[in-house]
Amino acid sequence: MNRTELIEQIRSKKSFLCVGLDPDMNKIPKHLSSTEDPIFEFNKAIIDATHEHCVAYKPNTAFYEAYGISGWKSLEKTIEYLNNNFPNHFTIADAKRGDIGNTSAMYAKAFLDTLNFDSITVAPYMGSDSVKPFLTIPNKWVILLALTSNEGAFDFQFLKSNEKPLFESVLEKSKEWGNENNMMYVVGATKAESLADIRKIIPNSFLLVPGVGAQGGSLEEVCKYGLNKDCGLLINSSRAILYASSGEDFAIKAKEEAMKVHSDMLKFV
Amino acid sequence: MNRTELIEQIRSKKSFLCVGLDPDMNKIPKHLSSTEDPIFEFNKAIIDATHEHCVAYKPNTAFYEAYGISGWKSLEKTIEYLNNNFPNHFTIADAKRGDIGNTSAMYAKAFLDTLNFDSITVAPYMGSDSVKPFLTIPNKWVILLALTSNEGAFDFQFLKSNEKPLFESVLEKSKEWGNENNMMYVVGATKAESLADIRKIIPNSFLLVPGVGAQGGSLEEVCKYGLNKDCGLLINSSRAILYASSGEDFAIKAKEEAMKVHSDMLKFV
Repeated sequence: MNRTELIEQIRSKKSFLCVGLDPDMNKIPKHLSSTEDPIFEFNKAIIDATHEHCVAYKPNTAFYEAYGISGWKSLEKTIEYLNNNFPNHFTIADAKRGDIGNTSAMYAKAFLDTLNFDSITVAPYMGSDSVKPFLTIPNKWVILLALTSNEGAFDFQFLKSNEKPLFESVLEKSKEWGNENNMMYVVGATKAESLADIRKIIPNSFLLVPGVGAQGGSLEEVCKYGLNKDCGLLINSSRAILYASSGEDFAIKAKEEAMKVHSDMLKFV
Repeated sequence: MNRTELIEQIRSKKSFLCVGLDPDMNKIPKHLSSTEDPIFEFNKAIIDATHEHCVAYKPNTAFYEAYGISGWKSLEKTIEYLNNNFPNHFTIADAKRGDIGNTSAMYAKAFLDTLNFDSITVAPYMGSDSVKPFLTIPNKWVILLALTSNEGAFDFQFLKSNEKPLFESVLEKSKEWGNENNMMYVVGATKAESLADIRKIIPNSFLLVPGVGAQGGSLEEVCKYGLNKDCGLLINSSRAILYASSGEDFAIKAKEEAMKVHSDMLKFV
């Protein structure tokens, strides 16, 4: 999916919500556990219930790999279901990969080619040749970790070198590798106050923003500092939507939760 | 596997070689392509041929994920084969994972529990809560990226904050999370001159050292600066061993290559 298509979808829906698909077998409603593939059935119900309110889906690969081959099958079925039924939704493999060049090329093949996601999250620690192999496929995207939403972000991401915190060095360096048409950034909603500085470095890029909802970030704050002329934001919510109910009404409750976020977004687009 | 068992194996074999299992379908000998699972057959032959000369195996997950479910099956069969037939070999899931706490916990389940590897490589960018969930299982290990072997390592890992390059900050901070009994570090052989400084910070820890062989690092240099009283090194070689020959003699040639490295190691243990 290219940038224009993504922006058009955001404008027509007046939503920039991304639903994170983190299916945890301990939290999936009990009545699904007797189905052949509970994870896929759960995802399918969540997707069917929420697709009108969001523009993107983000399966987190850890939650599939934890179940071995059966989990990987569920992941494959989920992305196939999305690509076949909702081709206008932007898809994100939240995989946080990154390795030496020949290995990153294999990860690119795995997620952007074999599984056919639109994008993949990538960790920056190993630098240029760990990121560039993901940038060689037309209309596919890298979403680079910049400033993450977790407590551990304070361990290294704010370390200052030449007056600049590490996450700003990552943003600046990455502009040598990609551009606003093939690279986005992860910026946690829990660090909204840093968004103003971030927007000075990458004014036009899309930001994938986790941390609204279960992790405590605020949509208002994120929009105040993060919006740009093309919206430029994908706000992710996972647990708050997926596990709004643990009963048979989980999909209805998920839809209601997605609708709430969507309605909060209307005034910003 | 615990530290004592690993050291005993290194001493008894006089080897600290780790064989990287990076099976690339474009490089696997043609005569294997008609088998049901060429990747597993390739790995099995490599393992059978090299096990006397090495103490560890390191499948790189990218090379399995690139082939989707069939690749994941090959990975599962490979680690099962290792655990059933060579339980004294240390196993490394070279996965370079790392995410917020609840997600890293799922990756820990995937690789240290479901697949039952002894260890997993972890990227440090997201800090403490992205690493700690991997450290909760007895006799399992985190191998944290510190100073990698690739060119991109120069982008961020040498950025200085308080006179210290980032990789040294990673080493120091990580000592708050784990210790020499559950944490090792990736240090590239191509940066051997940094090993003396690294040993000042983590004198007793094991280092996983890629980059000898195809990437150009020197065993002599790495040993000169990296050896400690318990050896403290696992030297990885992947391509130089796996693809020593592309013919039907690939396993014999792999064994010869592993033996060469092993014989170079004898004087250091």
